Amino acid sequence: MDYFSTQISNLIEELSKLPGVGSKSAQRLAFHIINMPMDSVSHLSQTILLARQNVKYCKQCFTLTDQELCPICGSPKRDQSTIMVVENTRDLAAYEKTGRYEGVYHVLHGAISPALGIGPNDIRLKELISRLQGDVKELIIATNSSLEGETTAMYISKLVKPTGIKVTRIASGVPVGGDLEYIDEVTLLRALEGRVEL
Amino acid sequence: MDYFSTQISNLIEELSKLPGVGSKSAQRLAFHIINMPMDSVSHLSQTILLARQNVKYCKQCFTLTDQELCPICGSPKRDQSTIMVVENTRDLAAYEKTGRYEGVYHVLHGAISPALGIGPNDIRLKELISRLQGDVKELIIATNSSLEGETTAMYISKLVKPTGIKVTRIASGVPVGGDLEYIDEVTLLRALEGRVEL
Repeated sequence: MDYFSTQISNLIEELSKLPGVGSKSAQRLAFHIINMPMDSVSHLSQTILLARQNVKYCKQCFTLTDQELCPICGSPKRDQSTIMVVENTRDLAAYEKTGRYEGVYHVLHGAISPALGIGPNDIRLKELISRLQGDVKELIIATNSSLEGETTAMYISKLVKPTGIKVTRIASGVPVGGDLEYIDEVTLLRALEGRVEL
Repeated sequence: MDYFSTQISNLIEELSKLPGVGSKSAQRLAFHIINMPMDSVSHLSQTILLARQNVKYCKQCFTLTDQELCPICGSPKRDQSTIMVVENTRDLAAYEKTGRYEGVYHVLHGAISPALGIGPNDIRLKELISRLQGDVKELIIATNSSLEGETTAMYISKLVKPTGIKVTRIASGVPVGGDLEYIDEVTLLRALEGRVEL
């Protein structure tokens, strides 16, 4: 990219390292940033740095936060005896957006994947088990509906069931508004198996 | 987004202000940044700031650069008597990627659009006209093939033709590899009008 000058090329290169940002969008973002007011740019630059410097794991649920305890674990309104197990903070955010879940979470930061060499000790599973010493009534396993997510769900379920704590799995089936025609066979079969009486 | 802590929310908010970055991708980018090594993050943050601080317009062609003259205008290898007029620096980059254009450019930073209230004085047209005082043999108009681009091309052509400088327009037609079936009628007609003998 020697037709751009160094600092533009540097910016495009840095931006294109981000996930989902190809060389065209990096270029578009770079020109947008260069045309932004100076104070917006310095704010953006500062926010990036601050977030990286101050964000750590919540000591209870291991989501990312800038406090000791995340806003959810720290809230007196949340039911601490119901724990939803998710693979990552984005999945937690997805459930929070529903605005209807009142329990707390546990973020595994991954899923068991023999293919990728990720075992039970590589995710935050020990930390989940030690939380179960407290007053926990239900563990809702909300790992993804992928091979890794299912494996992780089975593993946790086998580990926790002997303790007598109720272990549940979120339902899998046809998404709301989904058109059967475009849904894969595995999901269709899963939806059939999980059918409920009306 | 009170389920994220402040600094994560701030970062997501800043990133989602960028063009083409929706709330989901902003979230994905934010978590990626938070998980990046500290020195990569400070490099990214620094690069953004530096590019914005130091990038200005090339005093000849008005592309964005961090020098007085951009690398193209400053290159002795480029033919200074052929000027390609483009709407913005991204369009310049697109032609540079072909690696075959040997002239220089003029970046208008926009196109004439009566609908948006953008007139000839709102783009770098005066600056183009004053460049024509020099030794210019050909002006290639490579504004977009949109209503605004065409209007601008016509306007420049009418303005420059009386000076005797050769004014050309890049061809419009069916894109290479394009399937006629999926191409709009206007393009198809344009391709027909512009047909060349084999």
